[in-house]
Amino acid sequence: MNVPEIIRKKREGKSLSIDEINFLITNFIEEKIPDYQIAAFLMAAFIKGLNKWETSALTSAMLFSGQVLDLSSIEGIKIDKHSTGGVGDKTSLILAPIVAAAGVKVPMISGRGLGHTGGTLDKLESIPGFRTDLDLKKYKYVLQKCGAVLIGQTKEIAPADKMIYALRDVTATVESIPLITASIMSKKLAEGIDGLVLDIKTGSGAFMRKTKDAKELAESLINTAKSFDKKVIGFITDMNQPLGNYIGNWLEVYECIKVLHGEKVNDLLEVTLHLSGAMLYLGKKAKSIKEGIKISQEMINNGKAFEKFLEIVELQGGDVSFIRQPGKYPKPKYHEKLTASANGYVASLDNYEIGMASLELGAGRLKMTDKIDPKAGIIFYPKIGDKIKEGDVIAEIFTDKKEKVDSVKEKLLAAMKLSATQTNPVKLIKKLLS
Amino acid sequence: MNVPEIIRKKREGKSLSIDEINFLITNFIEEKIPDYQIAAFLMAAFIKGLNKWETSALTSAMLFSGQVLDLSSIEGIKIDKHSTGGVGDKTSLILAPIVAAAGVKVPMISGRGLGHTGGTLDKLESIPGFRTDLDLKKYKYVLQKCGAVLIGQTKEIAPADKMIYALRDVTATVESIPLITASIMSKKLAEGIDGLVLDIKTGSGAFMRKTKDAKELAESLINTAKSFDKKVIGFITDMNQPLGNYIGNWLEVYECIKVLHGEKVNDLLEVTLHLSGAMLYLGKKAKSIKEGIKISQEMINNGKAFEKFLEIVELQGGDVSFIRQPGKYPKPKYHEKLTASANGYVASLDNYEIGMASLELGAGRLKMTDKIDPKAGIIFYPKIGDKIKEGDVIAEIFTDKKEKVDSVKEKLLAAMKLSATQTNPVKLIKKLLS
Repeated sequence: MNVPEIIRKKREGKSLSIDEINFLITNFIEEKIPDYQIAAFLMAAFIKGLNKWETSALTSAMLFSGQVLDLSSIEGIKIDKHSTGGVGDKTSLILAPIVAAAGVKVPMISGRGLGHTGGTLDKLESIPGFRTDLDLKKYKYVLQKCGAVLIGQTKEIAPADKMIYALRDVTATVESIPLITASIMSKKLAEGIDGLVLDIKTGSGAFMRKTKDAKELAESLINTAKSFDKKVIGFITDMNQPLGNYIGNWLEVYECIKVLHGEKVNDLLEVTLHLSGAMLYLGKKAKSIKEGIKISQEMINNGKAFEKFLEIVELQGGDVSFIRQPGKYPKPKYHEKLTASANGYVASLDNYEIGMASLELGAGRLKMTDKIDPKAGIIFYPKIGDKIKEGDVIAEIFTDKKEKVDSVKEKLLAAMKLSATQTNPVKLIKKLLS
Repeated sequence: MNVPEIIRKKREGKSLSIDEINFLITNFIEEKIPDYQIAAFLMAAFIKGLNKWETSALTSAMLFSGQVLDLSSIEGIKIDKHSTGGVGDKTSLILAPIVAAAGVKVPMISGRGLGHTGGTLDKLESIPGFRTDLDLKKYKYVLQKCGAVLIGQTKEIAPADKMIYALRDVTATVESIPLITASIMSKKLAEGIDGLVLDIKTGSGAFMRKTKDAKELAESLINTAKSFDKKVIGFITDMNQPLGNYIGNWLEVYECIKVLHGEKVNDLLEVTLHLSGAMLYLGKKAKSIKEGIKISQEMINNGKAFEKFLEIVELQGGDVSFIRQPGKYPKPKYHEKLTASANGYVASLDNYEIGMASLELGAGRLKMTDKIDPKAGIIFYPKIGDKIKEGDVIAEIFTDKKEKVDSVKEKLLAAMKLSATQTNPVKLIKKLLS
């Protein structure tokens, strides 16, 4: 096979065969095809698109570039959840213990935060001692032992994805639905799962701002999962405002502890329970998503989810005393309150700017090599539709960086648009796809 | 400036600024931007296009990546010709002496043959001793001395073009009108010319098979030349059959010698005289192209063009005895005749296949590193519209490769489609643009 001929076909908008895609990826991994040819291919694929068979073929080539875990020695159905990420999106930390407590295995390989969004690994690592870099043997051990495990991508998992992502990042070929699909699914399918629940975010704090794009990505992910014979349910959920109120790594763990203790953080709970409910349904512990939601709520109410969370933290090396007594966690140097400067109803929030404000305080990173401060972040109270009075505390700011406080306050005030007339709250669960 | 942001703009079909294009190319040359980013940019530019200002900016960045010759110390107007190449396209060897003999300077930097097409450098180098690798000092000297010089691209001339072309070649981004334009014009403008005549070929033996594409390329080249304040005339000429009858390096030199001696090779003469006529018009030695054609014919008739050719050959190290007595040139081992196997009128010729047949005999190369045999080639007699009788000699084959003779005969017969009814000859000069 001839590389320029394959690139040419894609450039002309023709479909590639499974063999052609496999040839490109396999040889790229083995460094037999140089990165400039793959860069040209990626740009052609970005502009001309990949159909669902090509997307599956690309996923497959990337998946089999590494190890595909065999979890058959571990009893039970294994279901994971994937979210496209957003601001304050901490559902994994709540649903993994809920679902494991209800008897479905949750083998979860997650990512880190970048730009305005946080990442599950960074949140977990804010717990002193918590290790997300388990090897695959330890991964299986924890999953077997407590029913859930949350780690980062290892070098054995889809190495092609890492190489291709690095190239996409510097060649302006990131925001492509088929390329995103292959990147996500190649890692998820390597986990050894039986089924997957997808949380595709849409709105100002999401990667896919438009619901139309989110729907397209959801459909692409669902088609690809099905082509690998995986059970799959997708939700399109709102990301026009932070999910819950806490943004920042330890702050988010803290909010999860509160939810696992039964505190009603409505929006966070609604999204989390739908996801865990669907996981329990796919894992055959519930006859419907609705029943799954009910079981999930019971797991919180009876304390089993919190107990499971402690178990996971302990098995992954974390210091559970911080989970039991979150108040003893180190405090940042500055804790300031921000009050509203006007009256009105919250009409919109620029959730991207709220995420970037949290990043500025030290909670996030612009580049993968940046260090983050687990203590930093924001508690942000207003939700779209809320009535705000001048002088109300709308946010609390946590940081070691005094010089950032004023600019973050300005940013947060600017991110909130008020209206004199009453506004409607957002619909959180926008769509269910399967 | 941020490279992925520039690539993204082009990917989205937006126009880039002169500064952005200059930034990409300048840093690529200095190896500060890696080839994979330029590969992604080239693919985006291929698919989304470049407008005329972007094309000029790209040309300029490539041009100033190297030396731009200053020929102001040499008196007179300097006019070059560029052809997009084809089968039997040997006009440069005739028009350079004609135009120089008539008093217009011809500084010409040419290329080599690849695939089905021949190259001026290979043809000239078939003359024993002829050097096309003159340095720029010698280039100026020969031009000053005899009014014409024909060399290959030096490392000082548009080094960006060499680097970008090498990348385009392996990333399926060759056949792009703006990229071709920048490649051609960056080299031509470096020659130190005042004006340029373009010969854009169209038909089965050309790179641009369709007249529509040839016209688009011609317009792009003309726009770019004008943006650099150069005088320019473009012809779109037919390449559905070989130009003249001789194909192969020394065979083509030989046909040029015959034409310079006054032999009427009609199609070759018609195209050559239009080009030289336009060059004399741009060089202010003629009031119109028509007058330029008349003067050109005179330069052949009075022997001055042939004398000028001898002068050029001598100054560039060639052995003029072969030009004076072409009969003493070494003969290939095999010289076979091919006769027609049917009666009819020539309806069409597959000129690409005729060029590839000549390559097979040793006259061309598939890769730039392949060696060529200057003695090899074909004399091909039939022209579209000609009446052919069974048994007529339609071609003569010259080669050292006995094993290729039969397959070339088959190829040539297959390339000629006969019709029972009379067919029309082609129109050679399809369009004049300026």
